[in-house]
Amino acid sequence: MKVAVLSGGVGGARFLRALAETLDPADVTAVVNVGDDLEVLGLHVSPDLDSVLYALAGLDDEERGWGRAGESWHALETVAQLGGEDWFRLGDRDLGLHLVRTQALRAGEPLSAVTARLAAALGVRTRILPATDDPLRTRVETAAGLLDFQTWFVARGHRDEPDGFRFEGAESAAPAPGVLAALDQADLLLIAPSNPHVSVWPTLAVEPIRRALAERRVPCIAVSPLVGGRAVKGPADRMLARLSGGTSPAHVAACYEGLIDALVVDEADADDLDGLDVRAIVTGTLMTDAAARRRLAAAALGVAV
Amino acid sequence: MKVAVLSGGVGGARFLRALAETLDPADVTAVVNVGDDLEVLGLHVSPDLDSVLYALAGLDDEERGWGRAGESWHALETVAQLGGEDWFRLGDRDLGLHLVRTQALRAGEPLSAVTARLAAALGVRTRILPATDDPLRTRVETAAGLLDFQTWFVARGHRDEPDGFRFEGAESAAPAPGVLAALDQADLLLIAPSNPHVSVWPTLAVEPIRRALAERRVPCIAVSPLVGGRAVKGPADRMLARLSGGTSPAHVAACYEGLIDALVVDEADADDLDGLDVRAIVTGTLMTDAAARRRLAAAALGVAV
Repeated sequence: MKVAVLSGGVGGARFLRALAETLDPADVTAVVNVGDDLEVLGLHVSPDLDSVLYALAGLDDEERGWGRAGESWHALETVAQLGGEDWFRLGDRDLGLHLVRTQALRAGEPLSAVTARLAAALGVRTRILPATDDPLRTRVETAAGLLDFQTWFVARGHRDEPDGFRFEGAESAAPAPGVLAALDQADLLLIAPSNPHVSVWPTLAVEPIRRALAERRVPCIAVSPLVGGRAVKGPADRMLARLSGGTSPAHVAACYEGLIDALVVDEADADDLDGLDVRAIVTGTLMTDAAARRRLAAAALGVAV
Repeated sequence: MKVAVLSGGVGGARFLRALAETLDPADVTAVVNVGDDLEVLGLHVSPDLDSVLYALAGLDDEERGWGRAGESWHALETVAQLGGEDWFRLGDRDLGLHLVRTQALRAGEPLSAVTARLAAALGVRTRILPATDDPLRTRVETAAGLLDFQTWFVARGHRDEPDGFRFEGAESAAPAPGVLAALDQADLLLIAPSNPHVSVWPTLAVEPIRRALAERRVPCIAVSPLVGGRAVKGPADRMLARLSGGTSPAHVAACYEGLIDALVVDEADADDLDGLDVRAIVTGTLMTDAAARRRLAAAALGVAV
């Protein structure tokens, strides 16, 4: 069974890891959000691609939830001491990847090609594709003005209430090579338990990708990132409450209107299915350990464990 | 007493540190070689400026002889794992500086201004000036072709015999702001115990700097980098033997023909002064510890210790 998965960062990365542990990893294609990519210290950083890459390579720091395990922070300590740009936490091991990727991008290699090389070097067989090789940047509309995603999320600690999002560059962005073919050839389409507004919508803002989901001939199943109406991590619940009218499974499904056939919801939300107009698949969705994440993957895949 | 010192990397850095420990550091100006600067992993690296900066900030690894003390190498381990450019050893703490500097240079800040900021951030009161803000690159003529300095020195381990040097960009390079004023206002000019051919000549290839030394009204004293006709570190002795006819004090002095009034030579070379046409100052020149390096500084300054 071939699956294609729209994914954001941490939650998506864990889910992808579970899928790669359940299926043949070569049959899993991740289409990853690049809306929160940024340039920091002159380096191109792709936080979601890296979260996925590190998780699939088994290099991620599961406790911290981002970045690499066994990380050190000496370069950034120097940067801080020298008055440089230190607001975005880049570890030393992580920096090595950003240096290699930035140099390749500057030399004209597309992001998708660099990503494939990095994945191969780390022994990752799951295909990791950026949604697009073109610039696509999420900006957040707030009372404080239109903010770059990472300025809003990291530098200002997502304290400004979002009034909306813009996905700059999306209208002219082409899907990265391989994305449409993966969506077309998949036996099952999945949307990972990522933040709908800022981790999945930027990818869906690339019109040919949205169209591929809208015109699908195979089922598409989304996994809700909420547990009991609360985000496991990050501001997804606040966004849903403010911009989508609530945090029930129906509100999550509404973020993917016309694009999904089922929603995997947590047991904690099983009594809150009013208004949900797609099939509910109820299971434990917290990926607290390997067994739990594989249970979630199996539920999404419709496979008994 | 104000001094201005032409300097290369490690030997020059130690000598400058001794001068800054002997005089008021604010009265010492280092004019540092940039001929061996390079771009690696997309970063601008200035090895000699950094050796000087780290030594004066007390951050240098005295045992290794280059880079920072307490260094880690995690970023470069990642680079190697990902098939990136790992031939030039950049430590994690060191990388932080290269990131900050490269970002500033890309934003249009001159190298001299960045260097002043970095030195201030590290509490260094000695003035550190690049010889020039303009591109000036040492290339080595060898039987294997014309090689970038670091390709010759690091990547190929200086195994190709040099037949000559080119200082590309020198003819159009202007001295960095402050260099000519420092040379003009100094009470004493010094040439550090650095490799004449590749650490001092690139700076002297900037014509206004050479002219300032040639037309000096104060003494100029060079410190020989050789001990008993041998380089303490690196290929200076091989270069002198091959390109300047020998490794005696007279051969070292000939590298600075018309530019110096005295040469500080090691006790081990005291019996080999034939043909030396400038005054010899004989002392121990090995900077094995703080006392030894200060003794050398005092000898060069003509100050009794």
